Amino acid sequence: MKLLEERIQKDGIIKEGNVLKVDSFLNHQMDIHLFNKMGQEFKRLFGDKPINKILTIEASGIGIACIAAQHFNVPVVFAKKAQSINIDGEVYATKIESFTHKKTYDVIVSKKYISSEDHILIIDDFLANGCALNGLIDLVQSAGATVEGIGIAIEKGFQAGGKLIRSKGVHLESLAIVESMDTTTGTIKFRPQ
Amino acid sequence: MKLLEERIQKDGIIKEGNVLKVDSFLNHQMDIHLFNKMGQEFKRLFGDKPINKILTIEASGIGIACIAAQHFNVPVVFAKKAQSINIDGEVYATKIESFTHKKTYDVIVSKKYISSEDHILIIDDFLANGCALNGLIDLVQSAGATVEGIGIAIEKGFQAGGKLIRSKGVHLESLAIVESMDTTTGTIKFRPQ
Repeated sequence: MKLLEERIQKDGIIKEGNVLKVDSFLNHQMDIHLFNKMGQEFKRLFGDKPINKILTIEASGIGIACIAAQHFNVPVVFAKKAQSINIDGEVYATKIESFTHKKTYDVIVSKKYISSEDHILIIDDFLANGCALNGLIDLVQSAGATVEGIGIAIEKGFQAGGKLIRSKGVHLESLAIVESMDTTTGTIKFRPQ
Repeated sequence: MKLLEERIQKDGIIKEGNVLKVDSFLNHQMDIHLFNKMGQEFKRLFGDKPINKILTIEASGIGIACIAAQHFNVPVVFAKKAQSINIDGEVYATKIESFTHKKTYDVIVSKKYISSEDHILIIDDFLANGCALNGLIDLVQSAGATVEGIGIAIEKGFQAGGKLIRSKGVHLESLAIVESMDTTTGTIKFRPQ
């Protein structure tokens, strides 16, 4: 998606350790006009699927998912990063390892809000090693629901997550795929799509 | 707001200890159509203010804030519940006590995204004792920015937060104010507005 690539190029900040900071428009301050264009694009990409619900994970997926949901006319469910003590039989639970925060979260979703009848579009802001996405897929499958697709804002194409998830046969679309980043020059190369 | 009151009456679940669960439409599964009507109502209530930014707090305020932002045509910033180790000089920080989780959070917002030029509408899903809101007001004031108003989905009118914040002279509007709840009969009384 040209508009998003241009925005990453303009406002993204490359930090040591292959970190790409996009918190001026994506995951701290949020450009709702851009989110709306992204929602339109997700609708173009997944509009032929019988999607009846969007699933995301707190916190930075929620804004993108909610704006996108308007284009699909469906509700959004967000998976919660839980304290273990809250987990009981009323939730589906999985574990997600966060490399950024160097810890493992329990992630839960209430059994009331995903069922075997559901056809789900998963939306998140970032895809790097794929741990969060694998967790969300696991939650959907625990409920016997169908993953109709996965829509990501920014994929780090040089990390393993995208390849791993596409190899499972899931329909994954990332609006911008960063192929490489150069800390010294500030250059970002995108995978042509 | 009639539509929200009716929805709380229909789908809200009253639990022991004055807990009102609205996670089927507000803060776990999110009814985006309802959020859009709420956004329209916030625009009606605060449309005469020179608002250029919406501030909320992760996680459950984000969806409501993003949908409302479309009606104001402004970006959203969400305050983050931080690990203390991440706090440095580049953020405004405050502490928020959570009664639900029985702990105190450090809450931060990057100095890049609130400045003394900003006229801010604070949006959140719930107002009970007012701790979260006081923290957000504190962040805005640390930046020298102006709180133009506070928009809340559901206020628990029988807890002290609403009175406390209105007494500061802040323009606070709650779309539904629960005056009392009866666990035995499931009855919810709203404050007429």
